[in-house]
Amino acid sequence: MTCLQTTILEKINSPEDVKKLSIEEMNILACEIRKGILNRVNQIGGHLGPGLGMVEATIALHYVFNSPVDKFVFDVSHQCYPHKMITGRKEGFTEPTEHPEISGYFNYKESPHDPFMIGHTSTSVSLATGLAKARDLKGEKYNVIALIGDGSLSGGEAFEGLNNASVLGTNFICIVNDNEMSIAENQGGLYKNLQELRETKGQAVNNFFKTFGFDYIYVENGNDIQDLIEAFNKVKDIDHPVVVHIHTLKGKGYEPAVTDKESGHWALAGFMDKKENNISEVPECYETLTNNYLIEKTKQDKDVIAITSATPGVFWWNKDFRAKLGKQYTDVGIAEEHAVAYASGLAKNGAKPVYAVMTSFVQRTYDQLSQDLALNNSPATILVYWGGISSADATHLGLYDISMISNIPNIVYLAPTCKEEYLKMLDWSVEQTQYPVAIRIPTANYVSTGVEDNTDYSDLNKYKMTEKGADVAIVGLGDYYWLGKEVKDELLNSGINATLINPRFITGLDKDMLNSLKAEHKLAITLENGILNGGFGEKIASFYGNSDVKVLNYGAYKEFNDRVSMDELMTRYRLKKELIIEDIKNCL
Amino acid sequence: MTCLQTTILEKINSPEDVKKLSIEEMNILACEIRKGILNRVNQIGGHLGPGLGMVEATIALHYVFNSPVDKFVFDVSHQCYPHKMITGRKEGFTEPTEHPEISGYFNYKESPHDPFMIGHTSTSVSLATGLAKARDLKGEKYNVIALIGDGSLSGGEAFEGLNNASVLGTNFICIVNDNEMSIAENQGGLYKNLQELRETKGQAVNNFFKTFGFDYIYVENGNDIQDLIEAFNKVKDIDHPVVVHIHTLKGKGYEPAVTDKESGHWALAGFMDKKENNISEVPECYETLTNNYLIEKTKQDKDVIAITSATPGVFWWNKDFRAKLGKQYTDVGIAEEHAVAYASGLAKNGAKPVYAVMTSFVQRTYDQLSQDLALNNSPATILVYWGGISSADATHLGLYDISMISNIPNIVYLAPTCKEEYLKMLDWSVEQTQYPVAIRIPTANYVSTGVEDNTDYSDLNKYKMTEKGADVAIVGLGDYYWLGKEVKDELLNSGINATLINPRFITGLDKDMLNSLKAEHKLAITLENGILNGGFGEKIASFYGNSDVKVLNYGAYKEFNDRVSMDELMTRYRLKKELIIEDIKNCL
Repeated sequence: MTCLQTTILEKINSPEDVKKLSIEEMNILACEIRKGILNRVNQIGGHLGPGLGMVEATIALHYVFNSPVDKFVFDVSHQCYPHKMITGRKEGFTEPTEHPEISGYFNYKESPHDPFMIGHTSTSVSLATGLAKARDLKGEKYNVIALIGDGSLSGGEAFEGLNNASVLGTNFICIVNDNEMSIAENQGGLYKNLQELRETKGQAVNNFFKTFGFDYIYVENGNDIQDLIEAFNKVKDIDHPVVVHIHTLKGKGYEPAVTDKESGHWALAGFMDKKENNISEVPECYETLTNNYLIEKTKQDKDVIAITSATPGVFWWNKDFRAKLGKQYTDVGIAEEHAVAYASGLAKNGAKPVYAVMTSFVQRTYDQLSQDLALNNSPATILVYWGGISSADATHLGLYDISMISNIPNIVYLAPTCKEEYLKMLDWSVEQTQYPVAIRIPTANYVSTGVEDNTDYSDLNKYKMTEKGADVAIVGLGDYYWLGKEVKDELLNSGINATLINPRFITGLDKDMLNSLKAEHKLAITLENGILNGGFGEKIASFYGNSDVKVLNYGAYKEFNDRVSMDELMTRYRLKKELIIEDIKNCL
Repeated sequence: MTCLQTTILEKINSPEDVKKLSIEEMNILACEIRKGILNRVNQIGGHLGPGLGMVEATIALHYVFNSPVDKFVFDVSHQCYPHKMITGRKEGFTEPTEHPEISGYFNYKESPHDPFMIGHTSTSVSLATGLAKARDLKGEKYNVIALIGDGSLSGGEAFEGLNNASVLGTNFICIVNDNEMSIAENQGGLYKNLQELRETKGQAVNNFFKTFGFDYIYVENGNDIQDLIEAFNKVKDIDHPVVVHIHTLKGKGYEPAVTDKESGHWALAGFMDKKENNISEVPECYETLTNNYLIEKTKQDKDVIAITSATPGVFWWNKDFRAKLGKQYTDVGIAEEHAVAYASGLAKNGAKPVYAVMTSFVQRTYDQLSQDLALNNSPATILVYWGGISSADATHLGLYDISMISNIPNIVYLAPTCKEEYLKMLDWSVEQTQYPVAIRIPTANYVSTGVEDNTDYSDLNKYKMTEKGADVAIVGLGDYYWLGKEVKDELLNSGINATLINPRFITGLDKDMLNSLKAEHKLAITLENGILNGGFGEKIASFYGNSDVKVLNYGAYKEFNDRVSMDELMTRYRLKKELIIEDIKNCL
């Protein structure tokens, strides 16, 4: 680990210090900020290309505007690293020991220069519209500046925000950072208009932003500090809504991130020393299983289609995968709502859509899951990745999918425990025509039992009793089945021969099996890798409410944890074998 | 009740019959369809203006296209009555006994001419994009036609759909029905562009639809069958995405619905004989309480602001109310996501936003509640109307708000039981600065106890034990507290003196009180006016899981009921006093 030597950055403790710099010094600062980004990301991982492209714009913004009186809202905040370095948090980038102290996202708990905590896309314009309206109600005067990337524009919330911000009638500045990329390529008709605007240097008459009535300024050299300062000075203290469309280079200053902007969007620690990931080199896992399945299945069946909403890389859907699927692959851009409705339409018309989505982002489509998909009983498949307790940022927790999805009627939400079950469930889901199906990809472990799964999952809500015992029944959902197995095995040492159950179905109770347990069991425990509230275990507790079977539910509490260690969480939630056994013994 | 006499309509049993008509006959058919709409709505209530404005267009669509081979998707389906009359369901409009048999919404269970069940807005383009893509995967050829009103365009899902539909590269026809209205007035910058397009007869170069790359046709006389047929013939079998922008008159044919388009959007049974609603004439209710409070509060405090997403009429926010609030009122249009993020921004910047929303539509903003609002702990107030078990259409059930909202961290979700609690909660919420607060407006009853509520709701999760007894504890949430009270009183006749509890807080357990009950209670029952799954009662069951207190949870099952009678539902869910008492006696 190395501390970063800087000449200008070391003097920057607040935006005030930027205002004292010459253009030449600001250009040096830009270099040093880039080094800071690379330094941090190489140490602890994080978003690379977005920040690298926004260095000059961020310096110019802080040179022209007066944060925190003037208020910046950074969309998704992938690009907020330069802002953090300028606003008193540079040690999070220059001092390795300080890296973990500073979040990778906009965070109001860290600084008054971050009005919000932000990590999902397409929110900045709406949030900033609220800030501006509050300012106006109070009769105050300052600038409200929403920053949004071209990629984030495709999300519906951004559109709703633009539609409303444009009629505020007062100061509102929307900086559109157009680096010609979303996380992967941009998707959709809108991007042809952005291209036209770039090609005409903002002169094209047909102008997406002007259709809302925004005033509009274009900056071709969005990495030129002088040009940016001139543009921002033009709009500072403006009395009406304006869009400043700046054309930047994603990844600027680190050639591999410019050459391959998609791979350079985010990087793991140590990326500067490693070669490109190659899907064929990695060990078998749920990603490789899924992708091999989809490649074979789409070959055999032209109705099968894989869908992502802007995050193909998360599922290792690399260029080779996409090329193999061809027309049987759709990236809808950042547009989770559309993705679900689109999948419903596909399924309703006889196709076999498989929509892969991260837990944290499936939240963006509750109503579409309910109204477009479930109400219509469209037989689409949704693969929910990254669900479970983690030490992630508060903006990207994977805890809420069970309480969200499993309480919507009609959806069959499945929790495989191993490779064999997963593949069987996946193929069953793709081929069946009766239900919307979601499958929760295990994250806590990867297990292959080697035993083929011959279950017909059309026989809904049938739990599998894998080991029959007495006194205690352990119901381990999905990847936590294996924690249940550990508990079961350890209990044998205390002379307790517990029953072990793999429920497989999150969305329904196996009442016959649960009733059958009443005769010889005093206690049922449930284990789930997600929030307890509204989750799987509470339903078991409710079922046994009117019986002599006691119930203990294990899972996460309802809270937004921000980068809390797994060990601390597992202890807090008593999700450790020895703690569970202690509870069981106390209860018997 | 009268059956409608018709000359042309009576011969229309399918779209094939429309194709045989002359223009003159189609114009007669238009008159008869209008009579059908008025007849039905006057008998059983429903959407009035949207269908009246779309009569000619619907006739022309069925004349030109070949449903159900060609596929229509009607956004929100407020305007689908003429379509239903043409596609074999005219008796639902002409024969009073048949009216209730036909849903007021697009419904795939009713007819192959309705590919989906639809009742929420802004979904048609995405759903139709899925249909079109499935068609293309299969190598089939036919037209896919999405209809969407100008009002629905403001919803983010519609934008996401347009962005993706525009690059399909194959046949896709989007009919934009521009009647210059949403449910109330349109809101946002987009509508200036639609106005410009209307004023230039579609010739304006700056064109919202063209920014996505859509081909574009404008039809000024959107109520002229001949013009419409010509336009639709031009786009029939087109090989790329096109928008047909038709300018129609909302309410056409019924003058009061033309003169006052907002009031004419939807009408109660008997509307043709009644005078305009006047808010001062109605008895006290939660709507009048809220509105009187907001009128007074906004006068006293310029930071208080009321927000709706396009449904002011639902809360009786009539023109007088809006005028009184002036700048302290925002209608964001159909844009629930924006509404929540906007409220968060307002609250974060010191304003006091109150966002009123219907249960069925708060579903459209899960991620904004979680990320924009709760994660930021912004002290906004959300009033959730129309929650509870009802005999509504499956598209508009008010059952899911508790399982959705109450499992998101940080939000305080309150359930008042009476006027006095509601007003206290409302004012507390508006004035406090610590939490996002949602309040569930009672629907099952309106009670004023006359006893002032002096609770400090900052002391979170303190339940109120209103009657102390033993053996059985009845926890009645919100409006179902009164059902609990009935059960409590009736049990006295059987010598059981139950404890009665008003929890008031949906989002947290009063562990002290619940623990204290263990000593003298064998059974706790919970009553909630919403879905059991993921709801309030299951959390009580989980809490008591490891104790000797048995628990019975009462509420709705996880299902999409479509216009099922309240009596049937309450029996099915055993939510009747005598059934609950029967269960209690069986359990003790």
